[in-house]
Amino acid sequence: MKFKVALLGAGNVAWNLAPALEDAGHEITEVYARTLCQAEEITERVYNARPTNDLDFSESLAEIFILALSDDAIAEVADQVILPEGSLLVHTSGTVPLEVLAYSSASYTGVFYPLQSFTKGKKIALDEVPIALESEDEESLQKLKKLAKSLSPMVYTLGSKDRKALHVAAVFASNFTNHMLRIAEEILHRQGLDQELLKPLIIESISKSLQIGAKKAQTGPAIREDLETLEEHHRFLSYNPQVAEIYRLISQDIIDS
Amino acid sequence: MKFKVALLGAGNVAWNLAPALEDAGHEITEVYARTLCQAEEITERVYNARPTNDLDFSESLAEIFILALSDDAIAEVADQVILPEGSLLVHTSGTVPLEVLAYSSASYTGVFYPLQSFTKGKKIALDEVPIALESEDEESLQKLKKLAKSLSPMVYTLGSKDRKALHVAAVFASNFTNHMLRIAEEILHRQGLDQELLKPLIIESISKSLQIGAKKAQTGPAIREDLETLEEHHRFLSYNPQVAEIYRLISQDIIDS
Repeated sequence: MKFKVALLGAGNVAWNLAPALEDAGHEITEVYARTLCQAEEITERVYNARPTNDLDFSESLAEIFILALSDDAIAEVADQVILPEGSLLVHTSGTVPLEVLAYSSASYTGVFYPLQSFTKGKKIALDEVPIALESEDEESLQKLKKLAKSLSPMVYTLGSKDRKALHVAAVFASNFTNHMLRIAEEILHRQGLDQELLKPLIIESISKSLQIGAKKAQTGPAIREDLETLEEHHRFLSYNPQVAEIYRLISQDIIDS
Repeated sequence: MKFKVALLGAGNVAWNLAPALEDAGHEITEVYARTLCQAEEITERVYNARPTNDLDFSESLAEIFILALSDDAIAEVADQVILPEGSLLVHTSGTVPLEVLAYSSASYTGVFYPLQSFTKGKKIALDEVPIALESEDEESLQKLKKLAKSLSPMVYTLGSKDRKALHVAAVFASNFTNHMLRIAEEILHRQGLDQELLKPLIIESISKSLQIGAKKAQTGPAIREDLETLEEHHRFLSYNPQVAEIYRLISQDIIDS
């Protein structure tokens, strides 16, 4: 089943989603952005979509409208967009509750959340990305399932609580792991050491963790309860009390769990 | 230049190091472990090494003695081992200072620290592993460089302060990223969600971080200073106050840095 889809947003998600939807046989009718120039960045990646900076979609032929926007912008655009009768409006956020779409002019609402960190300019294979769906309308949910399954074999229907849990977990698994790498970079930089030194260790430990599970994969001074090393490291970090406290707290949680 | 090397220890490092040294043309003369049976686990991986549970090496033909032991055991074994005249004794730890070898019977001491997370039974390509070296004796340092370079192109000479910095950075980059994944696993598990859901996101965000650096790669509610989401996530985690506090503190550090 092929859909006519309008994309609202011209960021990392839209940049990746537009051509992926077209490759799966759907038609992108319009791409909305605040400026035409931004919208054209996306429309030029597909066959025949119209760029627009106007939120009046009453004449649109699309039946699914995807808000591929930053979390902050979703409510505002949802409130302003004028949609045709029978339209289904979804957002792509892991955080924003379905209810923020309640005051829109859409007949039906939902969530279409691809679990990946997208970057403009870096093509992601959507067929390796899980997609989490939500809608209170059964027919809309079926539509979203068909749309999602045309992109990826990993399609999950989640309630709002599930989606929130998933997003909190994603913050730990993605943003916080990244911040641990950031702190490591800073320590090496401060000591004038080569950033390359830790890369093989990082790749090996993440891949081990994904293979055997993080619980079994844990090593290091905290899991050994090597209090002397923990104390020494904590002292070493005294130039940055906040990072020292992060060191202490995570080590304690490793010991406790 | 080829060396005769004795290995003291039969754990993850020795399991990987013994055949790698042999493949690079060196000769493993003996492998020491507390029990012969443990030592044989390593000697059977190489051509002609003698397993032993005796720390009297006065008759050994080796010139380099590698303590591939857990951090706790290094000082004890170093104090007890009887080494021939002119021998060089090194340990493989990122944490333990060189000075713990000062009271050993070795003529020279040093550190030979391969920066990787080793596991028995999983062969690691040593030529992709950086090796950090330390010694106060110039001739010993040259020997260790030759030994290390026969295994890996990435050889670094570090002082004790450098090595400590490196180890603290490695704890963040390896143990703490792993613990972030552990917390994510727990959140998914608690909500009855599939562990597979986050794997593509984890792989993509780590690879992005290594490519463009963690500072540029950061995304998520903290870097956006999306205080509403941070507050909501913190509330979501209230069932585990320590994890909630970890969430708060890392988010604050992302905002501040």
